[in-house]
Amino acid sequence: MIDYNKLALELHKEKKGKISVVSKVKVENKEQLSTAYTPGVAEPCRVISKDKNAVYDYTSKSNLVAVVSDGTAVLGLGDIGATASIPVMEGKAVLFKSFADIDAFPICLDTRDVDEIVRTVKLLEPVFGGINLEDIASPRCFEIEEKLKKILDIPVFHDDQHGTAIVVAAGLINSLKLTNKKIEEIEIVVNGAGAAGIAITKLLLKLGVGNIVLCDKKGVINEDYEEANWAKREMAKITNKNKERGTLKDVIKGKDVFIGVSAPNIVTREMIESMADKAIVFAMANPIPEIMPDEAKLGGAFIVGTGRSDFPNQVNNVLAFPGIFRGALDVRASDINEEMKIAAAYAIANTISDDELTVDNILPKPFDKRVVKNVAEAVKNAAKKTGVSRI
Amino acid sequence: MIDYNKLALELHKEKKGKISVVSKVKVENKEQLSTAYTPGVAEPCRVISKDKNAVYDYTSKSNLVAVVSDGTAVLGLGDIGATASIPVMEGKAVLFKSFADIDAFPICLDTRDVDEIVRTVKLLEPVFGGINLEDIASPRCFEIEEKLKKILDIPVFHDDQHGTAIVVAAGLINSLKLTNKKIEEIEIVVNGAGAAGIAITKLLLKLGVGNIVLCDKKGVINEDYEEANWAKREMAKITNKNKERGTLKDVIKGKDVFIGVSAPNIVTREMIESMADKAIVFAMANPIPEIMPDEAKLGGAFIVGTGRSDFPNQVNNVLAFPGIFRGALDVRASDINEEMKIAAAYAIANTISDDELTVDNILPKPFDKRVVKNVAEAVKNAAKKTGVSRI
Repeated sequence: MIDYNKLALELHKEKKGKISVVSKVKVENKEQLSTAYTPGVAEPCRVISKDKNAVYDYTSKSNLVAVVSDGTAVLGLGDIGATASIPVMEGKAVLFKSFADIDAFPICLDTRDVDEIVRTVKLLEPVFGGINLEDIASPRCFEIEEKLKKILDIPVFHDDQHGTAIVVAAGLINSLKLTNKKIEEIEIVVNGAGAAGIAITKLLLKLGVGNIVLCDKKGVINEDYEEANWAKREMAKITNKNKERGTLKDVIKGKDVFIGVSAPNIVTREMIESMADKAIVFAMANPIPEIMPDEAKLGGAFIVGTGRSDFPNQVNNVLAFPGIFRGALDVRASDINEEMKIAAAYAIANTISDDELTVDNILPKPFDKRVVKNVAEAVKNAAKKTGVSRI
Repeated sequence: MIDYNKLALELHKEKKGKISVVSKVKVENKEQLSTAYTPGVAEPCRVISKDKNAVYDYTSKSNLVAVVSDGTAVLGLGDIGATASIPVMEGKAVLFKSFADIDAFPICLDTRDVDEIVRTVKLLEPVFGGINLEDIASPRCFEIEEKLKKILDIPVFHDDQHGTAIVVAAGLINSLKLTNKKIEEIEIVVNGAGAAGIAITKLLLKLGVGNIVLCDKKGVINEDYEEANWAKREMAKITNKNKERGTLKDVIKGKDVFIGVSAPNIVTREMIESMADKAIVFAMANPIPEIMPDEAKLGGAFIVGTGRSDFPNQVNNVLAFPGIFRGALDVRASDINEEMKIAAAYAIANTISDDELTVDNILPKPFDKRVVKNVAEAVKNAAKKTGVSRI
């Protein structure tokens, strides 16, 4: 086993962090100084002050994304605060750069107040072409995202929600090709009602899934689930068509698909056995899934995906967010809307050709170079069709 | 004449802005991804969550400066707002990089509210090792700086104030060597009571200048100057020892030094003639000085400096801020205090050896590589002596 903790500590210390801000222009003599800075720099300022859209032409905005977090839901670490979250947000910036040549900058905010986070991001809007929300605890993340989408003129995307949802959707689209089931006829149970679980449920409903039962630790989220937060109560209205009650163990019976974004080892072989024929299992708890792939297969699962790179069918957000932002930035989009997200899901799915598609290969690998290109193209087209492109 | 406006427009458009965020680590395979991002990245997060100072070891904070502006006092352009100010703030970031290998990032805030700016910068503090305030209108800039210095644990430096003041101080220190006048005996008139004029006056008083008369458009700032803003009223208490009254024309008579940070062509040859013997003139209005150097010389000025690169003795902030922040960052300073500023002024002045020192060479040239090194070293030592170093 490679000790990634040790390697990571060494790497971070040696490099003193993972990002650097560099200059795209040289300033080595008086002429260069006078062009990049005063007096010449006044001219692009004047042009922008007359036409705000010119900011995309004369500044770095057109390729710049803020990775915004309050450090309240960081990886498996939980609420560690803004300062301790920086390595993750710098890491995200590194992924943006490596996968899609996007300039991304960590904005780690030392507050947990929704309105303060919203207002701060609004004040920072001028320099950025897009906002990637990251590792903000549920249900605050929904409120922050919703408010920001209303007041900002640039795209806002909460990767923990939508990145995960889009890749799950892509995996499901390809899985259904192998099972020959129709999306409107399948029944799904989603276990975990945080940011990811709720976003997955919403996106799959938009894709046309007939019925989804959403569970949290206590069981099925339903209309008389009193303790639930407002986000869960909202979900009760649009899920669970058949008004099922009980625990995951009860409601997984007969379902076509299990999607877990919850906790390790909570699904047994028997539970998988109780599912419908050709069951699809996405067990994405990290690092230990809800059920290990071999165990799920023994229970009769037809397709199994996890969040891990050492098993087949890794559900990895890196398949989604780089291409999505690449596409959004390329058309100076004012939003990343549902149509763009769905387009991204199909683009990821369709990157796997029919010849490549097997039960152990329903999703492209993270380093498959085709993905970002396909996703960006699909997102651009969807942006143009839905009127959020500014190009 | 080179048309810098045209060149600048072309350059900014071709490059799409002047800065880029790059990765210091490679993410080209699973192992690298697992070290720079999950799961390895959790380990530096854990270490920082236990020891906040470790953020300097494991993130980019130790070399990262925010260039913060509200765009209310941009170059000669005035209040053009946050968005139109971006090319200048990116330009400043370019200078930080080119002159001192510092990672600087533009934070252009879409508000003019003092408390909101202060709060926003406080929320952003985790990722940055220092704050450079830029092009914020007076007197708000003083309030913002003062409040930030109180609540932040990293250095705050308003370059328009202190950068200018430090370079003027350096120029004066060397000028006095050539005139053989003693600093405590000279009398100075400063024309212009905005951010730069006030900061220059304060720093020169700290350097030991005996008497400074500060003027604005209406004349001498004095104790019964009723219309003045609070910052000017404060200055009335510490300047103008001899209780002089009148306009610049009245009070420039007999003075040893004229320092202008005001408006073009407002000083005449006759006014220079009325000054003391071996008069020192810093006419720094940009791009047209208070009096042109040849005219000042005809009036008997012994030493003339301007803000322009096409005359001798250019007073250019680039001599100060890169080395000051380099020094402050290198010792993880919690502040840039008066001792560090004075050390920087002497370091700039002393970069010119006695052999090099002439009336037309009182300050190093902007591209003199000795400057940043000397300034950083002096600032580091001053930080250590005054207990604001964390190394």
